[in-house]
Amino acid sequence: MGSGRLAVIGGGVIGLSCAWRAAADGWTVTVVDPAPRSGASWVAGGMLAPVTEAWPGEEDLLALGVESVARWPAFAAAAGEAAGAPVGLRSDGTIVAATGSGDRAELDALAAYLARLDRPVESLSGRALRRLEPAIGPDVRAGLSVPDDLAVDNRMLLAALQVAGEKAGVEFATRSATGVLTQAGRASGVRCAEGPDVAADVVLVCAGAHSGIVHPALDGLVRPVKGEILRLVRRPGALPAPRRTVRALVDGRPVYAVPRDGDGLVVGATQAEQGFDTTVTVGGVRDLLRDVERVLPGVAEYALLEAAAGLRPGSPDNLPLIGRLGDGLLVATGHHRNGILLTPITVDAVLALLRGEPVPEPVRAADPARFTHGKENPGARVDQR
Amino acid sequence: MGSGRLAVIGGGVIGLSCAWRAAADGWTVTVVDPAPRSGASWVAGGMLAPVTEAWPGEEDLLALGVESVARWPAFAAAAGEAAGAPVGLRSDGTIVAATGSGDRAELDALAAYLARLDRPVESLSGRALRRLEPAIGPDVRAGLSVPDDLAVDNRMLLAALQVAGEKAGVEFATRSATGVLTQAGRASGVRCAEGPDVAADVVLVCAGAHSGIVHPALDGLVRPVKGEILRLVRRPGALPAPRRTVRALVDGRPVYAVPRDGDGLVVGATQAEQGFDTTVTVGGVRDLLRDVERVLPGVAEYALLEAAAGLRPGSPDNLPLIGRLGDGLLVATGHHRNGILLTPITVDAVLALLRGEPVPEPVRAADPARFTHGKENPGARVDQR
Repeated sequence: MGSGRLAVIGGGVIGLSCAWRAAADGWTVTVVDPAPRSGASWVAGGMLAPVTEAWPGEEDLLALGVESVARWPAFAAAAGEAAGAPVGLRSDGTIVAATGSGDRAELDALAAYLARLDRPVESLSGRALRRLEPAIGPDVRAGLSVPDDLAVDNRMLLAALQVAGEKAGVEFATRSATGVLTQAGRASGVRCAEGPDVAADVVLVCAGAHSGIVHPALDGLVRPVKGEILRLVRRPGALPAPRRTVRALVDGRPVYAVPRDGDGLVVGATQAEQGFDTTVTVGGVRDLLRDVERVLPGVAEYALLEAAAGLRPGSPDNLPLIGRLGDGLLVATGHHRNGILLTPITVDAVLALLRGEPVPEPVRAADPARFTHGKENPGARVDQR
Repeated sequence: MGSGRLAVIGGGVIGLSCAWRAAADGWTVTVVDPAPRSGASWVAGGMLAPVTEAWPGEEDLLALGVESVARWPAFAAAAGEAAGAPVGLRSDGTIVAATGSGDRAELDALAAYLARLDRPVESLSGRALRRLEPAIGPDVRAGLSVPDDLAVDNRMLLAALQVAGEKAGVEFATRSATGVLTQAGRASGVRCAEGPDVAADVVLVCAGAHSGIVHPALDGLVRPVKGEILRLVRRPGALPAPRRTVRALVDGRPVYAVPRDGDGLVVGATQAEQGFDTTVTVGGVRDLLRDVERVLPGVAEYALLEAAAGLRPGSPDNLPLIGRLGDGLLVATGHHRNGILLTPITVDAVLALLRGEPVPEPVRAADPARFTHGKENPGARVDQR
């Protein structure tokens, strides 16, 4: 069991999860966030898809993701039980679909890469895909079935995590954090823009794309990567949505559609680096609509409920930053496209750090020391730009 | 000057305008609407474009529109002065653009039709159009310039009309009207769903697509025609919006873009008859984005602020219903695509009716008696379906 006061900067999925679990572990926890449950965690699609996100050269990230997705069912059950409300985990698996010949070549390369890593996936013809998911249209010529890549309703999850935290005693300071307070070289609390500062024995930075604003050591390490996403819902008479998550390459552009209970479908996501801009653009929405219709033609009759943009926290090597940043100062950010996927293993690592125990093995590659090591003052500015 | 109590059912652009002008004319006015300034008037694009809306066989509607657009500058000035706030009238004119050869043939037919009516318009090459409006893209091959077709910011207008009404003493009963009360064969007030009924000496029905719910004589005459519309705004670095309203035919589909002060652009509008459904659909938004980009390619970089759907009040012959429906009962509805355009002349007609004077000549074709004439009880159900 831990003890003392923990201040968590950021009320997204990582911050809320760490707050809940730390409070259950004996800490007195305050989450500092002007708008908990908003930001990238709110906008996200909720894919839990390490295998279909795999990319040659990112084996550390794949290992981290595979380990985290394995922890997801237990994490979802624990959060759901603590909150007394479901988190919306879906276990129907994921399809990867390809349209043009270039897209099929990329799909074959992914399948070969996964086979070399002993993660074989099932290659399917367009016809076989449509037998699995009749919503898939005739432009899809080939695909893969990846049953272990899951999905979660990120908004149900956020609601459950906040309730679980509140039941465990987590307090919320709904104001903006502007920095980490230090005393005699040790983190001593959170400086706030509106209202009083928050005193703490340990500070945990989970501020996502805004982490660099909170602490200078993260400025230039964590950068905002904008993503636009649409929320659809089936209307009466329209074709049913797929049961599985459908990811696709359409003329080289990636698009995904994540089903939700209640006939919902979340369609994402564009990727752009334009600073802290969260504008939804005409071109982004046009691409998402065009591409998802190529793969799932029936969505033309769906209702478009929402178009939104969020800022993923990118890191220089696409691995997150999970570990110790200074005395009394922990960080769990930089999760880029994988924040919700990596939540269970990130939380387990943060709990281990709070207890003074070693982190799970795959998290060691995410130690922020890979960027800050050798600096005299790890709290000083690290400019990677 | 009038006298007595006037109840106006409907707080859209027609209802608010009539309420303001009647109150200024001496009437004690109550507007009955659960949500004034919402509905089709709020969703609208704000085109004031009788000429570019002209259609062979609809000469009465063209005459009504031309007469109304001529009254628009004075109406806008009066409303703006009464409210102490501008209504956002734009006098830059309208361009009609065509892309494919079928679209050009339709454009030529429109130009020939307008010439036969002695409403000549200027035919322009694609290059000449781009000299006028550099935002127009290379897919546009030909067009027309119609300087007298104007536009207004319908949301500024609604705000100004409500303020003008309030300053003139208009009261608002923010509840749903469910019918017209009668006493000894004469309208005596408005039956309300929530809260007390509204007593009146004269009742004016301006309930748009919902008019048939309010009075049985309008049920089956006025039907909802759904339209989806997008609101964009230019982002820094994106190409400027056109100064003029741009209407276009893209592979046979009509699309329009109405500029707003402050770099806004309103893009509309789909057309569908599906009852009282105001869902925004994937297919509708996809069509609007694709088609407006064909005409104004720079909008790809614009922000998409809003997608909404409204219900135009359609009538059997596309002419509105403006006139006497019974003793103490007036109607001004069924304006379909032209409610904002036809506001000034509709208001002038309603004021004339309230004063017992003849309506302006072009409004005579809009007398509801063309549908209800010969019925023993003009308040009884008229089934035109």
